[in-house]
Amino acid sequence: MKLNILILISLLLLLTGPAAQASSEIETLIDMLHQNGTISDAQYARLQAELGERKVKNNQQVVSLNKQGVQAKKSSDVEVSVKGAVSVKTPDGAFTTKIGARVMADAAAYKNDNNTMGDGTKIRRARMSLQGKMYHDWAYKFEYDFATGEIKGIADAFVEYQGLDAMSVRVGNMKDPFSLQFQMNANYNLFMERSLTNGLNTGRHIGAMVFTNRKNWTASAGLFGEAVQTVGKEKDEGWGLGSRVTYAPINSKGSLLHLAVSANYRDAGEVAILRFKQQPESNVSGINIVDTGNIAKVDFHSKYGLEVAMVSGPLSVQSEYVTASVSRYSAPSLAFNSWYIQTGYLLTGESRQYRQGKFGKITPNFSVGNGGVGAWELGLRYSTINLNDQNIMGGEAKSLTLGVNWFATSTIRFSANYINVLQVNGGPLESVHPDIIQLRSQWAF
Amino acid sequence: MKLNILILISLLLLLTGPAAQASSEIETLIDMLHQNGTISDAQYARLQAELGERKVKNNQQVVSLNKQGVQAKKSSDVEVSVKGAVSVKTPDGAFTTKIGARVMADAAAYKNDNNTMGDGTKIRRARMSLQGKMYHDWAYKFEYDFATGEIKGIADAFVEYQGLDAMSVRVGNMKDPFSLQFQMNANYNLFMERSLTNGLNTGRHIGAMVFTNRKNWTASAGLFGEAVQTVGKEKDEGWGLGSRVTYAPINSKGSLLHLAVSANYRDAGEVAILRFKQQPESNVSGINIVDTGNIAKVDFHSKYGLEVAMVSGPLSVQSEYVTASVSRYSAPSLAFNSWYIQTGYLLTGESRQYRQGKFGKITPNFSVGNGGVGAWELGLRYSTINLNDQNIMGGEAKSLTLGVNWFATSTIRFSANYINVLQVNGGPLESVHPDIIQLRSQWAF
Amino acid sequence: MKLNILILISLLLLLTGPAAQASSEIETLIDMLHQNGTISDAQYARLQAELGERKVKNNQQVVSLNKQGVQAKKSSDVEVSVKGAVSVKTPDGAFTTKIGARVMADAAAYKNDNNTMGDGTKIRRARMSLQGKMYHDWAYKFEYDFATGEIKGIADAFVEYQGLDAMSVRVGNMKDPFSLQFQMNANYNLFMERSLTNGLNTGRHIGAMVFTNRKNWTASAGLFGEAVQTVGKEKDEGWGLGSRVTYAPINSKGSLLHLAVSANYRDAGEVAILRFKQQPESNVSGINIVDTGNIAKVDFHSKYGLEVAMVSGPLSVQSEYVTASVSRYSAPSLAFNSWYIQTGYLLTGESRQYRQGKFGKITPNFSVGNGGVGAWELGLRYSTINLNDQNIMGGEAKSLTLGVNWFATSTIRFSANYINVLQVNGGPLESVHPDIIQLRSQWAF
Repeated sequence: MKLNILILISLLLLLTGPAAQASSEIETLIDMLHQNGTISDAQYARLQAELGERKVKNNQQVVSLNKQGVQAKKSSDVEVSVKGAVSVKTPDGAFTTKIGARVMADAAAYKNDNNTMGDGTKIRRARMSLQGKMYHDWAYKFEYDFATGEIKGIADAFVEYQGLDAMSVRVGNMKDPFSLQFQMNANYNLFMERSLTNGLNTGRHIGAMVFTNRKNWTASAGLFGEAVQTVGKEKDEGWGLGSRVTYAPINSKGSLLHLAVSANYRDAGEVAILRFKQQPESNVSGINIVDTGNIAKVDFHSKYGLEVAMVSGPLSVQSEYVTASVSRYSAPSLAFNSWYIQTGYLLTGESRQYRQGKFGKITPNFSVGNGGVGAWELGLRYSTINLNDQNIMGGEAKSLTLGVNWFATSTIRFSANYINVLQVNGGPLESVHPDIIQLRSQWAF
Repeated sequence: MKLNILILISLLLLLTGPAAQASSEIETLIDMLHQNGTISDAQYARLQAELGERKVKNNQQVVSLNKQGVQAKKSSDVEVSVKGAVSVKTPDGAFTTKIGARVMADAAAYKNDNNTMGDGTKIRRARMSLQGKMYHDWAYKFEYDFATGEIKGIADAFVEYQGLDAMSVRVGNMKDPFSLQFQMNANYNLFMERSLTNGLNTGRHIGAMVFTNRKNWTASAGLFGEAVQTVGKEKDEGWGLGSRVTYAPINSKGSLLHLAVSANYRDAGEVAILRFKQQPESNVSGINIVDTGNIAKVDFHSKYGLEVAMVSGPLSVQSEYVTASVSRYSAPSLAFNSWYIQTGYLLTGESRQYRQGKFGKITPNFSVGNGGVGAWELGLRYSTINLNDQNIMGGEAKSLTLGVNWFATSTIRFSANYINVLQVNGGPLESVHPDIIQLRSQWAF
Repeated sequence: MKLNILILISLLLLLTGPAAQASSEIETLIDMLHQNGTISDAQYARLQAELGERKVKNNQQVVSLNKQGVQAKKSSDVEVSVKGAVSVKTPDGAFTTKIGARVMADAAAYKNDNNTMGDGTKIRRARMSLQGKMYHDWAYKFEYDFATGEIKGIADAFVEYQGLDAMSVRVGNMKDPFSLQFQMNANYNLFMERSLTNGLNTGRHIGAMVFTNRKNWTASAGLFGEAVQTVGKEKDEGWGLGSRVTYAPINSKGSLLHLAVSANYRDAGEVAILRFKQQPESNVSGINIVDTGNIAKVDFHSKYGLEVAMVSGPLSVQSEYVTASVSRYSAPSLAFNSWYIQTGYLLTGESRQYRQGKFGKITPNFSVGNGGVGAWELGLRYSTINLNDQNIMGGEAKSLTLGVNWFATSTIRFSANYINVLQVNGGPLESVHPDIIQLRSQWAF
């Protein structure tokens, strides 16, 4: 905006230039007439005086305009935009701030034996965020979840130094570098909930991470303390190390092959307790389909993950395998594992976007409200998790999920999922295999 | 802003037009002098050359200005305004976002037998909100209450489709369509607290609602699940249906007759518990003056409401009657009811505004800070609620309230209320009839 | 921005003025030539007509420009800036809104006997704020802390009338006027935590305060109710009176002598309970090093504070003494006290700024990201608190703290503190004297 004004002022100065010279042909004419004797010396003198007066006046205006231009330049103008989110940016890009938010409202109906899960509604996520850049090289983010969900409260809360070529450094509360479905923004996951494999996920911790995002590969490694909610009191909190490396040998618009490995080590601290649990790809009832309960006397545990994903035009396929081993004091080690495979198809021809080692935003080709029908996507998933080992019977579950997504605009999504829990062996819900239908309305920016 | 710049540029182009032609009278003069033989052919040729040069220069400037105008048009400018709230809007109105907030700080003194309510202070509401429009047809709102009041946490959290002529569709967490005093923004209620009739109110639920707002009538109907805080676990949550229709046969500036009916049905779900309770039009001590406690084995309950309100210049009158009937498994049905009548008078001559079936914002004719005294309003209310029926003795209370409001500006309000609980029969506070004086400072936008 | 456009339009009007008169020398020339008989009457008439036409055209343009200027003035343009915080301001300054935030992420390691404090991490503060001015004379602020720290939840939440010359009036939730280290924004305290003297601090309460800030002195006095979290139910809440007066006989850039006294009286209400406790200048483990536990049957307590601080270039020194006396029903009075002295030195040559009776923001001379190294500061502190008196053995602690601060930019800070608890007599952690190392990353605006 400022720029526009500066341009205008410059143009005005250009214009006043010729204005000051506008009379050059008059001057010439006057000189000629004087030379030719058509006008007398006295007349000539009077005309010259008038010409001189006007030049002085014009010059004063130019000086005044110039001064105003400099003052305008000083005032700190910025670029503001709104697309739900409000974004503000200095012209040089050194400072940016984006105010964002999202709300997901769910309803679910459970058909199951013994009535173990109740129908209901839930605000799944309700977040506000503030993120941006300061002094060119520093990025920051704060996002808070107001919903009373599983990961309630502070989500991202970090500061990042981006002034190095080789890598960026992030400090604060953040996601551990682990698992494709976890790295992805939940707004754009193919289904309403992440797969059962999320039961072996790492979550967010307070710590420090270095990372690099290149066109075809990314790498991250971090040292982490505990989750935000943890207050250690007299006991040492747990801590961990995590790393993820992704490689995309094929990565062009509408065409992708993604491969990744991740590893995570976590010391249980003096609390020495660990628990794995997972809801049945539906979070409304609040009931876990598998749950180890508190595993006591844990020294540490490690997790390894493998990822493969591909995109070919409107088709996407994504699969992950995660294994966890738990080392206990005076008890044998435990091994759990989980995997899923899912595929999605965008009926309206869009492609899932890929950036920085994960899938990103879906933008419909034609939004509702701009005369379009939005983007429609179908999805199918099979996932399984096994939390049975040794004396720990957390349960083994297999699940099939069908989903349809309607991205009415880039900021508004409606989803319907049908989840069929095929089998549960062991654990708190042994032999319960509910059918679930759930709906979501979502706005996010 | 963008528009202004385009206007400026257009005007500049207009100006440069005549500038290019500015010399028309000089041209004419030169032609004449040449014709008259006053200047020679050589002199004439030289003058023509100078004239030609300047025309070319002027034309170049016009072309350059034109180009800059087109570039300015491309940049995505928006309109920003601030009046406490920050509002951002694209020039075509397709996207808007408003960041709002409000804080109400209360102090109350209770004079009562047996010292059943303690004097104190309270942040009654402390909210932030984000609302606006996306892609022309989609509206959204998220409002969160940070105060530790009764309805803490997520307030509105919905998305709305406004692209249909007949009606709008809203999905998420919202107020059930019931009761005038509940539909109104608490910022502009005549008294600091809603009347005792609020004890039979519906509250907010997660669901879907269709509604129409016309000049003289509105209609809303919705299907709702449970409140945000409810987590059903293994039990089915409750659900409900609600509808409200308003009609304003008189509705012009400063003159209103409002009539409305509303009905609400609510299934108690597998929890099967229901509770009605109400504070004595003062929420600082946190003590309920009537309270049924948990009513068990509830199947469903229905509520009906009647509303009448009028405005005649600075005078407003408002009255509601609500009845609730509770159907229980293996126990007789219960019937409760409540009504109030209140009248307000704006000493400074403003009128209560009416819009979309409810009263809206009060804007003083002359704000404090702009040399005015703000708007001053007096109010008087009588209200009663009866929660005694069958074996349930929730109590019957009658209350008289006197209030004075000072709307210093459209965003700042101070209120003082005197509440005299005339009578309490039955319930936890039988025969206690406190006198209450309470004060509030409020800013809201 | 609006101003700029108005300036432009004014200048355009100025320019079109001379444009309209631009032909004055032509007019003169034409008159002369007509007078001299060089051009005929017919020719003169034609030239006059052309001149007249152009004047009309120019005048029309001026009128049109004028109209556009008025329209532009009507549109509600504002100044927007971003420096992390987003600030919006009307051109006349009558309305301003600033959206701010801050996050502090800590890690701490405790070396102590008996393992009484556990190592860990913590989000110390995570706040968002909205503050500004409305209708010239009204200021407001709302700040919320999302961290699960000691003072979680609503921080500042008030409205202020600034339309009086003698003083301002503030109503809502705010800091009691007490203690320099408490009045200061935690973002800019010399150490990561306030000194042990914070154990005798007043905290924030809901109330009303009048205050004056002059160049060399400030005075504040307020009447307060209870803290936000307190819900009195049937018991009267506590209330208090507080006052602080500061005087700075020396107060120029880089040179300061600050003196202050404060007094605070607090009635314990019908709850009649009081508790003093303090963490060891480290808040990660959540363990108190001194703690009186609940003192029962308290009637009221008073606190007095003395402050002295000075700045000489990069050097700052600050010291406070606080004494508290507790009056109990049917038990002797109690007296506790605490003091600290701390000194800081800014290696990079900045000076601690002083404003409104407290130290303010640190802005590095050269920020990281603008080619600088930021501001580096060293600090040393000795502090002690004694909560032992009569039958109450809260403990007496002495502590030495070493700190280094790196203000990378005006919005980003990293700190490292080494705390050596020299001695603890009595209280829950008798004879425990931990060594603590703690780190913080902070962004704040």
